[in-house]
Amino acid sequence: MKIIYAVLALSIASAAFSQKVLERVEPAFWWKGMKNPELQILVYGKDIANNEITLSDQIPIKGIQKVDNPNYAFITVNTNEINVPKFSINIKKGKKNLGNYTYELKQRNSRSADRESFTSKDVMYLIMPDRFANGDEKNDSNPALTEKADRTLPNGRHGGDLRGIINNLDYIQNLGATAVWLTPVNEDNEKVYSYHGYAQTDLYKIDARYGTNEEYRNLSRELNKRNMKLVMDYVTNHWGVSHWMIKDLPSKDWIHWFNDGDNGFKRSNYKTTTQFDTNAAEIDKKYALDGWFDKTMPDINQKNPLVLKYLTQNAIWWIEYAELGGFRVDTYPYNDKEAMAKWAKAITDEYPKFNIVGETWLYTAGQISAWQKNSKTGEAAGYNSNLPSVMDFMLFADLPKALKEKEGWNTGLVKIYDSFTSDFLYPDINNLLVFFENHDTERWNEIFNADPKTYKMALSLISTIRGIPQIYYGSEIGMRGDKSKGGDADIRRDFPGGWKSDPQNALNPATQTSGQKEFFQFTQKLLNWRKGKEVIHTGETKNYIPQDGIFTYFRYDEKESVMVILNNNETDQTLDLKRFEESLKGYSKGKEVISGKEWMLQDKIVVPAKSSLIIELEK
Amino acid sequence: MKIIYAVLALSIASAAFSQKVLERVEPAFWWKGMKNPELQILVYGKDIANNEITLSDQIPIKGIQKVDNPNYAFITVNTNEINVPKFSINIKKGKKNLGNYTYELKQRNSRSADRESFTSKDVMYLIMPDRFANGDEKNDSNPALTEKADRTLPNGRHGGDLRGIINNLDYIQNLGATAVWLTPVNEDNEKVYSYHGYAQTDLYKIDARYGTNEEYRNLSRELNKRNMKLVMDYVTNHWGVSHWMIKDLPSKDWIHWFNDGDNGFKRSNYKTTTQFDTNAAEIDKKYALDGWFDKTMPDINQKNPLVLKYLTQNAIWWIEYAELGGFRVDTYPYNDKEAMAKWAKAITDEYPKFNIVGETWLYTAGQISAWQKNSKTGEAAGYNSNLPSVMDFMLFADLPKALKEKEGWNTGLVKIYDSFTSDFLYPDINNLLVFFENHDTERWNEIFNADPKTYKMALSLISTIRGIPQIYYGSEIGMRGDKSKGGDADIRRDFPGGWKSDPQNALNPATQTSGQKEFFQFTQKLLNWRKGKEVIHTGETKNYIPQDGIFTYFRYDEKESVMVILNNNETDQTLDLKRFEESLKGYSKGKEVISGKEWMLQDKIVVPAKSSLIIELEK
Repeated sequence: MKIIYAVLALSIASAAFSQKVLERVEPAFWWKGMKNPELQILVYGKDIANNEITLSDQIPIKGIQKVDNPNYAFITVNTNEINVPKFSINIKKGKKNLGNYTYELKQRNSRSADRESFTSKDVMYLIMPDRFANGDEKNDSNPALTEKADRTLPNGRHGGDLRGIINNLDYIQNLGATAVWLTPVNEDNEKVYSYHGYAQTDLYKIDARYGTNEEYRNLSRELNKRNMKLVMDYVTNHWGVSHWMIKDLPSKDWIHWFNDGDNGFKRSNYKTTTQFDTNAAEIDKKYALDGWFDKTMPDINQKNPLVLKYLTQNAIWWIEYAELGGFRVDTYPYNDKEAMAKWAKAITDEYPKFNIVGETWLYTAGQISAWQKNSKTGEAAGYNSNLPSVMDFMLFADLPKALKEKEGWNTGLVKIYDSFTSDFLYPDINNLLVFFENHDTERWNEIFNADPKTYKMALSLISTIRGIPQIYYGSEIGMRGDKSKGGDADIRRDFPGGWKSDPQNALNPATQTSGQKEFFQFTQKLLNWRKGKEVIHTGETKNYIPQDGIFTYFRYDEKESVMVILNNNETDQTLDLKRFEESLKGYSKGKEVISGKEWMLQDKIVVPAKSSLIIELEK
Repeated sequence: MKIIYAVLALSIASAAFSQKVLERVEPAFWWKGMKNPELQILVYGKDIANNEITLSDQIPIKGIQKVDNPNYAFITVNTNEINVPKFSINIKKGKKNLGNYTYELKQRNSRSADRESFTSKDVMYLIMPDRFANGDEKNDSNPALTEKADRTLPNGRHGGDLRGIINNLDYIQNLGATAVWLTPVNEDNEKVYSYHGYAQTDLYKIDARYGTNEEYRNLSRELNKRNMKLVMDYVTNHWGVSHWMIKDLPSKDWIHWFNDGDNGFKRSNYKTTTQFDTNAAEIDKKYALDGWFDKTMPDINQKNPLVLKYLTQNAIWWIEYAELGGFRVDTYPYNDKEAMAKWAKAITDEYPKFNIVGETWLYTAGQISAWQKNSKTGEAAGYNSNLPSVMDFMLFADLPKALKEKEGWNTGLVKIYDSFTSDFLYPDINNLLVFFENHDTERWNEIFNADPKTYKMALSLISTIRGIPQIYYGSEIGMRGDKSKGGDADIRRDFPGGWKSDPQNALNPATQTSGQKEFFQFTQKLLNWRKGKEVIHTGETKNYIPQDGIFTYFRYDEKESVMVILNNNETDQTLDLKRFEESLKGYSKGKEVISGKEWMLQDKIVVPAKSSLIIELEK
């Protein structure tokens, strides 16, 4: 406590020399026509709370909330009561004018509330912007931001940016992805290791090394033109230690800090199972939820209503401003769960179709499903998250094991099958994110030694089961990365061709190596086929217990049916089709999606070793 | 179909020579005063359905149900309408009297409905009666029963019996067990491999090689006198192929049989996850539920209302007759789940405190809990089992792994801890059966090479966590058995001293070897201590995330608190107590249950290598 207060006092003192009375206003503007007309405007500046704060045009103030730190005030207004497009926030002391801000209330786009969001119709492409493509070398470093570009440092800033992504939208679209999830692009002004963006220092501003707010919105609009969506990586759990509000804390309970910690810091125990565990020790819960994710990431206290309001308005601001198509929310179960239920509800109240997927890194369907809106498992814990979508980390964990193991009674593909037998626990089974890797995990192509066969099997699976497939940039050209040896940097290598100086360009299919081509072309074919396949997006599923190392399942609806076969054996296998009678009834043949080959579906077929077949059934 | 009908026809034909018109009446008698006054009496005999069936004393018949096979009739009466203690069932053809049976309606014991059943206050001792003790050598073989005693055959009948158990009740009681679960003791007249009893051939008759119905009731009464309970192993899923009703099937849908099978037989695929799997193929479900557990065990069709009624009345008959204290139900998820929900409801309607534990052999809390009455997970699957108790096979699977593994972030004791983090999914967490082995699994003392240290750790755990601990005969003297090498016979060895000719008697603590004593005395001390400990039976739990290979948890209520520490390291470990402040508040010392040693609980304690400490806290 002492230490934090010392820091707080110091930062106030040091700021005193230069600080103006009105330094910041957040959100910088807002919209009329939101479902929730209440707006809370944060004003920040030297001793601002000790001055008189008024609004022009006789706009009524519902309340001004002050906090421990007099540099903050929170003004609440009802936007329904404001009938001017612009008004002024005035700070005065007696008759002395200390500052003014012209606040704009834009008119909300009439279709904004009905915006479409990512669903199981989509395939999500995950990009770490610093490592994808450098479209604008001029913004690689910025005088106002501490860490400068240095591509020779594995954990440094490499210069990838929004322009780089915009320049390569043809590539992404041709690949077959329809939603793009960028790891955070808000300003992260940490001294080092800032490229990942999870230690945000300004929640309303795109990091200048990635581009501008306008450029971010431009990316979103370019995607929307292509009928694609931009998914923001939203971080509610922690901010960067260099965040301006952390450096001048509004109140001591804005973040969680530990008396016995190192400058307030104690590391999380990362045991988020404590959230639903009726027997968890308080101290374990406290470290799980209040402990810091890392030393540079103070843990935000969502229980504080001002914090929650700030996070809620900021989230809505980005959706409205940048015309977003979804959120991925970082470290979801590390947050205060009741606060997050309110956060998710406020957003989906405003945008009923807006999808939010939480990073629910847990390993059982019982626990993961408890985080999905309206789940019975959540109900068992007395909780309703209001969170539409969760991540299937159980499948993620089982998938590489299954494809590595020798097939047996309870080994091999049966592990994947088994993971689906708990699907009944999910209230919305189509709204699971399914994936075999992301920016925090070992790369699939490392685990399997860049073997295209297992990549194809895994991609075939996640592209044809229930849920929203998510792929990670570079997988589609066989990129490797060994987290256990090279750390995070190794699973976040630069995309070849994203930099002008790169000796080879894999972002242009014409200049891909033959090795890259094998991965790319398969991915492209499969994902583009998936785009129009309602039967995959929302069809029913019929799984057959794996036998002899072969897992067969069907996706079907009233109109069509697709048969998927995975052969995990090192040898070709003859598959007797009789067992699938209930799913093959009325069909006698089918067309394999990748090869285009016709398959006669009578009696028996031979399935090649270590392969997948995706067969559209035909009468 | 053809084959089964051939068998059916043949058995009718062969019976024709000797069969009487009234051969059997089931149940043989019943009680007045049951909550459900309806009684269905099965009468069986040659062509009985084609005769006139009447009751004496002008007792109204509510209905006579006939089936495909004319050798059966099912008479329904309302016992509330019967005011005589005995009446006659008369079979006539015209004026010719073909048979009579004097049916007795006993008066139900007034406290019968309120009978106590096993709860978390109890410790359950599982016995395979053929392998425990031979109290009556005269019944080892029986002229009417095919398989004769031969102790030299691992899979043969060894002669253990009810008298052997009755003779050793002092031993069991002194050990600290309070409930005794016997594997099935009804007649199993298969030709070979009949000792396990799961292929029952008469559901109303104790196998003569174990004793008589009266002796079974006597065992129950002897247990009740000691404030102990007898738990019957009830089998609803299958009967023996030599069951009299299977040999002369009432109707073709009495059992499940397969046209393309071997005499109707197809083996189950043992995938009972298909019960709740919304995506399971019909054929997989069919094999899981309708496939036979083994070739000698036709799969009973509980969907047939007559079958269900038969199973329900039989179950109630045994409870009422033998004054039972609970059921363990075999292969629970292999049954028709809707029928079983009715079965469990009918029984618990009649005996509200009666406990029934299903053999829910599944590996995730999400799936296991779905089988417990009123669970939200069941609700997610649209199901309510009405089954009070389930078996914690997840803990069973994790326990040996945890104690074998090197301790790490997600290995070792954390596996056990993790398995408890899903407790929120169970609506009645105290009603889980917890165990580390049973008659179907590898013996613990085999896995751990008869090491008393790991046995003590495992027993300490299951005796102090939530639920009902279950131990398996012989574990308490370190008995080994390797299923993977010696098959089931090896995990069902004869208890040393159960036979007069045995060279050594471990059923007498005085003649136990020193090795046996170490196991026995620990078990005895721990289980006897547990008897009076409400704080263990129904107290709250507080688990602390394992650290450095030590798992610490507390059981507590308003009155007292018990601290349990498991050290899985091969070395002594110093444990800093500061972390447990919330649980140790107000306590400064404690008494370790086994050693009786006082422990000062300030600052730090040293926990011996590979050990458990159970400390009753003291102010």
